[in-house]
Amino acid sequence: MSGDLSRDELIEQGRAALDWIASYLERPQEYPVLSRSRPGDIRAALPASPPAEGEPLADVLRDFERTIVPGITHWNHPAFFGYFATSSSVPGIIAEMLTATLDVKAMLWKTSPAATELEQVATDWLRQMLGLGEGWFGITTDTASMSTMLALAAAREARPELAIRERGMAGRPELPVLRVYTSSHAHSSIEKGALALGIGLENVVKVDVDAEFRMRPDALAAAIARDRVAGRLPIACVATVGTTSTSSIDPVPAIAEICRREQVWLHVDGAYGGTIAIVPEFRYVLDGVSDADSLVVNPHKWMFTPFDCSALFLKRPEVLKRAFSLVPEYLVTREQDEVVNYMDYGVQLGRRFRALKLWMIIRAFGTDGLADRMREHVRLAREFADWVRATSDWELMAPVPFSLVCFRYAPPNTSDADRDRLNEEIMHAVNEGGDVFLSHTKLHDRFTLRLAIGNIRTEERHVALAWAKLREAAARAA
Amino acid sequence: MSGDLSRDELIEQGRAALDWIASYLERPQEYPVLSRSRPGDIRAALPASPPAEGEPLADVLRDFERTIVPGITHWNHPAFFGYFATSSSVPGIIAEMLTATLDVKAMLWKTSPAATELEQVATDWLRQMLGLGEGWFGITTDTASMSTMLALAAAREARPELAIRERGMAGRPELPVLRVYTSSHAHSSIEKGALALGIGLENVVKVDVDAEFRMRPDALAAAIARDRVAGRLPIACVATVGTTSTSSIDPVPAIAEICRREQVWLHVDGAYGGTIAIVPEFRYVLDGVSDADSLVVNPHKWMFTPFDCSALFLKRPEVLKRAFSLVPEYLVTREQDEVVNYMDYGVQLGRRFRALKLWMIIRAFGTDGLADRMREHVRLAREFADWVRATSDWELMAPVPFSLVCFRYAPPNTSDADRDRLNEEIMHAVNEGGDVFLSHTKLHDRFTLRLAIGNIRTEERHVALAWAKLREAAARAA
Repeated sequence: MSGDLSRDELIEQGRAALDWIASYLERPQEYPVLSRSRPGDIRAALPASPPAEGEPLADVLRDFERTIVPGITHWNHPAFFGYFATSSSVPGIIAEMLTATLDVKAMLWKTSPAATELEQVATDWLRQMLGLGEGWFGITTDTASMSTMLALAAAREARPELAIRERGMAGRPELPVLRVYTSSHAHSSIEKGALALGIGLENVVKVDVDAEFRMRPDALAAAIARDRVAGRLPIACVATVGTTSTSSIDPVPAIAEICRREQVWLHVDGAYGGTIAIVPEFRYVLDGVSDADSLVVNPHKWMFTPFDCSALFLKRPEVLKRAFSLVPEYLVTREQDEVVNYMDYGVQLGRRFRALKLWMIIRAFGTDGLADRMREHVRLAREFADWVRATSDWELMAPVPFSLVCFRYAPPNTSDADRDRLNEEIMHAVNEGGDVFLSHTKLHDRFTLRLAIGNIRTEERHVALAWAKLREAAARAA
Repeated sequence: MSGDLSRDELIEQGRAALDWIASYLERPQEYPVLSRSRPGDIRAALPASPPAEGEPLADVLRDFERTIVPGITHWNHPAFFGYFATSSSVPGIIAEMLTATLDVKAMLWKTSPAATELEQVATDWLRQMLGLGEGWFGITTDTASMSTMLALAAAREARPELAIRERGMAGRPELPVLRVYTSSHAHSSIEKGALALGIGLENVVKVDVDAEFRMRPDALAAAIARDRVAGRLPIACVATVGTTSTSSIDPVPAIAEICRREQVWLHVDGAYGGTIAIVPEFRYVLDGVSDADSLVVNPHKWMFTPFDCSALFLKRPEVLKRAFSLVPEYLVTREQDEVVNYMDYGVQLGRRFRALKLWMIIRAFGTDGLADRMREHVRLAREFADWVRATSDWELMAPVPFSLVCFRYAPPNTSDADRDRLNEEIMHAVNEGGDVFLSHTKLHDRFTLRLAIGNIRTEERHVALAWAKLREAAARAA
C-alpha cells in the first residue's frame, strides 16, 4: 500500500465536492445559520478511535455532509450577521485548492520565489487600494491577533538599548516597566499580544473613550505623562479603525501626533474597518495612518478572502526583522541578502501561500468590484439603522460609520435591567430560529445587539429578514 | 455589481483547476523541483498595480499557470528531498476546498460546534495513533513554532507565583532570570519562541550533545545546577525527537526524570519525528513522553496533510488556558463553562478549521495505511544510506533513525575545506538540474548534504534518481 489516492478519485470526489459547494453557496437557506448541535453531539456521532483501514473518500464526504455539517455554524451564510460578518468567495475557494496542492512553505525566497514575490506584489496592490503612500512593507499573517503581536514585538525592539532580544525582560532590575496604550474599546488581541510578550495585562493601559467610543487623545497624553512621572516606559499605542463592539474610529491623526512626540510606536488596528478605505469615499478612515508605524487590515474579514489572511504593513520592517530574524545553517541561502525571506519577520518558519488567494480575489473582482460590494454593505447597514431609528420601542446604541449596527429593543416603561434581559432573550430566540445569526456586546454596561454586514452574498432581503425576525422575537418576548 | 461569481463559474473553473491539479500530481517530472526563477523575475512579470475591473477567472488561472507556477519550488514533488520533505494528498486537498467554503473560525464552540468537537476527536485519534496514554489535551496550531511558543508560555504560567500574566516581566527587580534548556541541535523555533516571550536569546541554554547529536542528560543537569547557584530560574526544557539537522532523538526518559526532579516543564518537539510513532515498531521514539508536559507533532510534515496543521498535546491544558484566556463581552457564550473554546488556548482568536483535513486524511488512509507509507519512507532512506555506505568516496555523517540521511562526498586526499566546497557545489548543481532537490546543514562544522524522504508520492525511482544525480555532479565537481 503506497502513494496517494488515484487521479480518478481526485477528479470524481473533487467534482462531487464542487457540486456540494455550489449547492451550499446557492441554497444557504437550507442550513440553520447557528448550528442546532448541543455540546457533545458531534463527538458522540463519531467513532472514538480511528479506522485501521482506509475508507473510500466518498464515504468520508457522505459523513462530512451527514455528521459534520449539522454541527457547523455557517459563517459563510449571507444571513450571518454576528461578530464581524465575513465570507469566502469563488476565486478564494479555487485559490485554496491550488494552495493545498502546491503545499508551499512561504518561508525563504528560495523555497518558492513566486510565493514570496506574489506576497510582495499582492500586499503592495492592497497598499495602493487602501490609499497608503509608498514606503510600507507588507506581510501576511494568519490573524490580526498575530499581526498585532508582531507589531508590539517590533515596538519593543524599536528600543534596542533595552537589549530584550538578547537578554530578555526578567531579572533585570535596570529595565523599566513597559507600557502599551489602547482604548477601552480595543480588541482583546492587544491584551493577548501583551500577555504573550511578557508585558503583562496591567501594563496595557485602557485609555478612556468619548461618547462615541473613540479614544480620547487628551486621556492618552495624560496616561503617558503619568507613566513617565512614575518611571515607566511607554513603548506602543494601538489605535483602532473600527472597534469590535461598535466600529468606532479612533482619532488617528491626533493620536499619531502624541506618539511621534513621545516616541511611542503607533500600531493601527484596522482589522475590520481598514479595508473600507478601498472605497474612495471612505478613504478618510485611514487619515493619519501615514504617520503610524504599523497597520493591520484583514482581507479575510471584509474582503471576501477565505480565512486566513491578515495583512500587516510596517514602515520600518527592519525593526521587526531585528526582533525575530534567526538563520540557522540549514536555512542559509546564497541569495539571502538580496531577497526578502519572510521567515525573518515573525515567529513562524513555515508560512501558508496566502498571497495566491489575495491576488486571485483582487483580479477576479477588481478594485472597483470590491469597492462596489463593500459600499453596498454600508448602504444596507445604514438602511437597517434607519429602520431601527424609525421604529418605536427600538433604539440605536452607537453611530454607524461602517456596516455594523448596534441597537436594542427598548420599550417604554422598562428598566435597563429588563431591557438587558429582553434583548438577550431576543438574540437567543432569533439565533435559535436558524434564519439569521447575530451577536452582542455591552455598551455603557447595557446588553446591545450587533448586526454586522460583510458577506459577499448578503442582499437586502437577508437584512430585512433579520429585522422581521427581531421584531417577531421582541413581540413574543414583551 | 454585487455578489459572488456564479455557480457556473465555480463549477467550470473549479473543474479546470481540478484537471490542472490532477495533471500536476501525475506528471511532476514536467516541473523543475527548485524554481529556476531569479530574484525579481516574478515581480517583473506582474502588473505593478491592481486592475480596476474584475477579470475572468479563467484568465487568472491561465496567469497562475504561466507566471506563478514557474516561480514555485515544488514542495509537493516526489523528488523534493530538502528540509523535511512534506506533502499534501488528495483527501487533504479536497478537505481544504470544503474548509475554504465553510470559512469557519474555530474559536468558540458556538461558532462551530463541529469544528471544535472534530478538533477534539481528530487530535484524540492522533494521540491514540501515537501510542500516548489518556489524559492529553490536543489542539491544532499553524506551525510547530507556534505550538512551541505556546508550550513555553505555559511553562512560564506554570509558575503563577511570578504573576507574569498580570504584571509582566520588565521592571520587576524581584523576578529571577528565566532559563530554557534545549540541545545545541534543537530547532530555531525554540529560540524564536523565547524571543517572542521576552525570555531572551542568551537565556536559551544550548545543552551539549553526544557523538550522535543527542542532548546529554548529564550536561542538562549540570546546566540547571549552575543556574540554580547563580539564582536563575529554570522554567522549561525542550527535548527533540528528530532534530532538524540529523533527526537525532534526545533521550527523553532521562531528560524527563531531571525535569520532574527540578520542576521544569518538559516540552517535546516531535514536529517531524513524532509522527513515526504511528508505525508500531517505531513507537519507541516517544518513550518517556508520558512524563513530559507537552508534545508537538506536525501532521503537515510527515502525515500527508496540507500545510498548516501542527498538533500540540498538553497534560495540563488549564495552565495554557490560564496564560491566554481572555473573554471580552462580545465573546461571552452561555455554554462556555461546559465546552472547550479553543480561543482560550493561544494568541489567535480566529482559527482555521484544520481538524477537517486531519480527520479526512486519517479516514481515507486508515492508521495502517499511514503507517505503511511512513515505513516505506524509512526503508527508502535506509536503502539510500546503504548506497552511500557501499560507495567509496562517499560517507554518512550521522545515524539514520528515520527517513533523513546526512552524508557527503569525501574523496580521499581532500581537505575538509575542499570537501565543504565540493559538497556545496554538488548540492547547487543537483538542485539547479531540476530533477531533485535537497538541502544541507553543518555537522561538526562541515558542510553536509541532507536527503529527507516524506512525500506520499516518493518512490524508489525518485531516490535512485537523486543518487544518480549526486554521483554525476560529484564526478563533474571532482
